[in-house]
Amino acid sequence: MVPTRYARVLHAGELRYVRVGEAEHQLLDRAPWLGGSETGERAAAGATLACPVEPTKILGVGRNYRAHAAELGNDLPTEPLLFLKPPSSLVGPGAVIELPPESARVDYEGELGVVIGRRARRVSREDALGYVFGLTIVCDVTARDLQKKDGQWARAKGFDGFCPTGPVVVSGLAPAPLALELRVNGELRQSASTALMVFDVARVIEHASACMTLEPGDLLATGTPEGIGALAQGDRVEVSVEGLGTLAFSVST
Amino acid sequence: MVPTRYARVLHAGELRYVRVGEAEHQLLDRAPWLGGSETGERAAAGATLACPVEPTKILGVGRNYRAHAAELGNDLPTEPLLFLKPPSSLVGPGAVIELPPESARVDYEGELGVVIGRRARRVSREDALGYVFGLTIVCDVTARDLQKKDGQWARAKGFDGFCPTGPVVVSGLAPAPLALELRVNGELRQSASTALMVFDVARVIEHASACMTLEPGDLLATGTPEGIGALAQGDRVEVSVEGLGTLAFSVST
Repeated sequence: MVPTRYARVLHAGELRYVRVGEAEHQLLDRAPWLGGSETGERAAAGATLACPVEPTKILGVGRNYRAHAAELGNDLPTEPLLFLKPPSSLVGPGAVIELPPESARVDYEGELGVVIGRRARRVSREDALGYVFGLTIVCDVTARDLQKKDGQWARAKGFDGFCPTGPVVVSGLAPAPLALELRVNGELRQSASTALMVFDVARVIEHASACMTLEPGDLLATGTPEGIGALAQGDRVEVSVEGLGTLAFSVST
Repeated sequence: MVPTRYARVLHAGELRYVRVGEAEHQLLDRAPWLGGSETGERAAAGATLACPVEPTKILGVGRNYRAHAAELGNDLPTEPLLFLKPPSSLVGPGAVIELPPESARVDYEGELGVVIGRRARRVSREDALGYVFGLTIVCDVTARDLQKKDGQWARAKGFDGFCPTGPVVVSGLAPAPLALELRVNGELRQSASTALMVFDVARVIEHASACMTLEPGDLLATGTPEGIGALAQGDRVEVSVEGLGTLAFSVST
């Protein structure tokens, strides 16, 4: 299966899903995971990309790489450790995010994102990848001090702008092994393979869907490898995943 | 201001918002918090009520009544303790919910629900109630054992069916003081006033909106008073809040 790339662009004043092409994009009548078809309309390849997903929920997985759990002094969980980020935290590629005054330490966490393609309820690990539409890149921005202070992670991971996602959603690509790298101002900070997840994507979907129905378009942030660190005003962050391109965003000055 | 009651009913095969009347309901063209207007269509007053909200997120507040924090051996938080429930956990009045095999202890938690009426971002406590559309009733069903085991509450509070909500949304009513009662199989288990919240609705909105933008239709579950306890197969639960009616649901056998 040849990987296909999807994005969302501003076209005639509306955000529209597109199939990404080299020279131009093909517009769809709805999200591809909702059965969107090409309408024959086209958008210029240079069109500004918006956040490529509109999930009803965003599920994260904590401590899903051994070396990251260790760097924060945490034991490895025995099952995938789920948390939720609100859809209001989503921003697209090229976003400028703010460091909230409530926190003195906001970290980047580069991650592989998984977009659900079919409603999933108690699916087995064996069947789970059949419920995936495609892959994207997520930065699970986290206010480290509030994460500890609150105990619950909803606020620490839920500020507006704390879920940069994109630039595209790619279908037809296996979730592992893919090289993942994160750079701050050009300097390499995270570098790992998605094959190093403690719980692979199929197991995360099995676990999550045993609790809550996953809807088409829902987004899973599959955990970050080691190398996390603080963001400062004016920083430029780039998260790259093999086959998915680079998600770039900046921190406001 | 005379309280106005809104609900959602199945009408001609579609779920439609209505203004609730004694003899019949007036259909709206969209959710009232999105500016819905009456279309002139009517539905029978006996129409089955569906879950009356479609939030982009559901925010809960932990340990927001002193006596409930004490009954679980928890200290009172110094700020509202936020958590998220997924929209997939919502069910309407009259629902039959399942006790998941992953948990050996699933508790009821009767709560006042608040429905946001206007986009709220960093609103002050003084202005906060101006962003409320209305009030409803929520049962924040919680797998107590998984809450402790996972540490994060997303799974324990996130199973399908763990957010019974309704029967109606009432605008024009102050959130406190309102008497709240929960009965299991007719037996009174929880009885308190919403005036006993540690952080009142205005303070919760101030705190939450300093983190994440609250969208029209978003739902806040404002915490449960003391008297929580386990649900068993076949139980019938009724949560009543003064002025909001009674939310009833059952546990499957």
